[in-house]
Amino acid sequence: MLQPEKRKIYLEAGADALFLETDFLRRYLTGFYSTDGYVVLNGENCYFFADPRYFEAAEKALKDSPVTVVAGTYQQALEALAGARTVGVPFPLISLSRAEELRKKGFTLCDCMPALKTAMEYKTERELALIEKACSIAEDALLRLMPLLKEDMTESETAALLEYEMRKLGASGVSFETIVAFGAGSSVPHHETGETKLKFGDVVLIDFGCKTEGYCSDCTRTFLFGDDGRHGRFKQVYAEVLKAHELVKETVTAGMSGKEADEVARASLRAAGLDGYFTHSLGHGIGLQIHEYPVLSPKGEEILQDGMVFSDEPGVYFAGEFGVRIEDSCYMKDGKVRSFMHKTSRELLIL
Amino acid sequence: MLQPEKRKIYLEAGADALFLETDFLRRYLTGFYSTDGYVVLNGENCYFFADPRYFEAAEKALKDSPVTVVAGTYQQALEALAGARTVGVPFPLISLSRAEELRKKGFTLCDCMPALKTAMEYKTERELALIEKACSIAEDALLRLMPLLKEDMTESETAALLEYEMRKLGASGVSFETIVAFGAGSSVPHHETGETKLKFGDVVLIDFGCKTEGYCSDCTRTFLFGDDGRHGRFKQVYAEVLKAHELVKETVTAGMSGKEADEVARASLRAAGLDGYFTHSLGHGIGLQIHEYPVLSPKGEEILQDGMVFSDEPGVYFAGEFGVRIEDSCYMKDGKVRSFMHKTSRELLIL
Repeated sequence: MLQPEKRKIYLEAGADALFLETDFLRRYLTGFYSTDGYVVLNGENCYFFADPRYFEAAEKALKDSPVTVVAGTYQQALEALAGARTVGVPFPLISLSRAEELRKKGFTLCDCMPALKTAMEYKTERELALIEKACSIAEDALLRLMPLLKEDMTESETAALLEYEMRKLGASGVSFETIVAFGAGSSVPHHETGETKLKFGDVVLIDFGCKTEGYCSDCTRTFLFGDDGRHGRFKQVYAEVLKAHELVKETVTAGMSGKEADEVARASLRAAGLDGYFTHSLGHGIGLQIHEYPVLSPKGEEILQDGMVFSDEPGVYFAGEFGVRIEDSCYMKDGKVRSFMHKTSRELLIL
Repeated sequence: MLQPEKRKIYLEAGADALFLETDFLRRYLTGFYSTDGYVVLNGENCYFFADPRYFEAAEKALKDSPVTVVAGTYQQALEALAGARTVGVPFPLISLSRAEELRKKGFTLCDCMPALKTAMEYKTERELALIEKACSIAEDALLRLMPLLKEDMTESETAALLEYEMRKLGASGVSFETIVAFGAGSSVPHHETGETKLKFGDVVLIDFGCKTEGYCSDCTRTFLFGDDGRHGRFKQVYAEVLKAHELVKETVTAGMSGKEADEVARASLRAAGLDGYFTHSLGHGIGLQIHEYPVLSPKGEEILQDGMVFSDEPGVYFAGEFGVRIEDSCYMKDGKVRSFMHKTSRELLIL
């Protein structure tokens, strides 16, 4: 028996059966994590084809779920499609090779990504709880890290320690490569964490997150490692970025588009003459993937609704000097933006 | 000016230009890591289109390389394809959506994956050195972990500590989710690291690896946390798996196929009546991806050659009881298999 939300995906896709092999979609539909495997979803059943590396574990994990675990690989999954004429596959994720194989077998492909995307954008209570846990672990780890920061520590050592704290707190791993930037490195929005050493007076930018049962957290904090008295401009900019960040939380409501939400932050920075240095989008959806829907950018057409999870991360960068980004993972509830992050301060911290 | 190995890929692909957006292919062709971006390779130049998050860093990192960094995204990359009729894209990696977009623009697509795969299978000295470093870090981390193992530590804590040691030793991150299995969990080839606690007499299986500049290491060790005297069968099996593992190193030579290499280990386990429990392949290629070419399996048609890097990882599993897997990352040199791993013992360790 199919769960109602899966039946909804099936019906919306409008195909005789769905065929999925992307890891996070498998996890979404089965609740089981594996590096390989195939899911076939028809109007009655959700089948998970697991190879010998996963079969035992999948059977055990899914014995009380509506998912039917079958020992097999691609061939067996194909056989389960017998009788189907139209097969739903996610066009933005399925490879051209696989698509052409399926077409050669006589299947007509249709794109089931819109149906999956819509379903996955609205988080269940369980999903929200897992993201909340991932956020809580991330914040706790940052709080443990702060007092351990010392002059001459490298960015890599700092990232390693932060990741270790997240792991010890129960994370299964990072949700993306941890960004630790000291000093001028903070002006590179996606700085590569390296061997730069921490110095008194440095701007420190840390963008990080972890996973619990596959669900991601995403957080950025910018702070000062001591105040050398040369940070007047930085402090002004910090205050403006924080203002934009908080304004999003206060004024964005359900029914606004991603574009409108982005404009809230962009307009606030524009008023301060800083919009030209806000070189990325306001935010992105967060779930089993660190970047998913909705998109909060000047091009974001989607309407924000209750149950959606997204980042609020305005940032301003002065190449070669410094950057400021302040990011919370947030969700929409009762028409308003709520943050998952309550433990770490967004006010400027001077260690 | 294009480097000769890139020109070779271009010529082999047989297209007017190549268009690539997969992260590890971008990294392979540019040497620069980013989560987004596009590469266009034609007969004369390799262009990397970087968005504002990466532009500054990419320009700096690639200023002395033959790669031309261009500020831009998909649209600019498309413009660089102007004049091309056939465009080479990797069919197994490009999405159906993107392929259909490009076809609508009038491009004829051809598969450049065979050319890329061939090039990437043969590692340069620089690539071998990076994999060697990733292997060395992994082994050093395991050696640091061993004396820290204590009764009642969980699998997750153990994985966290091992990952922290790898990070401290200079790894940029893990090459895949660390597998730590205590006791019967070792019988699941891809066990999900969890909250099981370490007990005296447990079989411990750890499958792990890290990355340096994107290049992966992969290692598995199985050992006993104390000997409770009930491990007669385990020790017999261990000896047979080790025998198969070593036989591969001793007898596989350049010119043999992946299938023949797999058969060396399988035949050895068959002679011991254990081949029915060897439920996966002997090994896989290792590079910027943890699983790449060549494939060492009963279906592996590729011929092993000097410069290739692959795992040697026979494993035997008794569901609900125990499993044994012994894995080194190896390479082919002067026609013979060489291991990257020299620091940790493959002989049965009893802690």
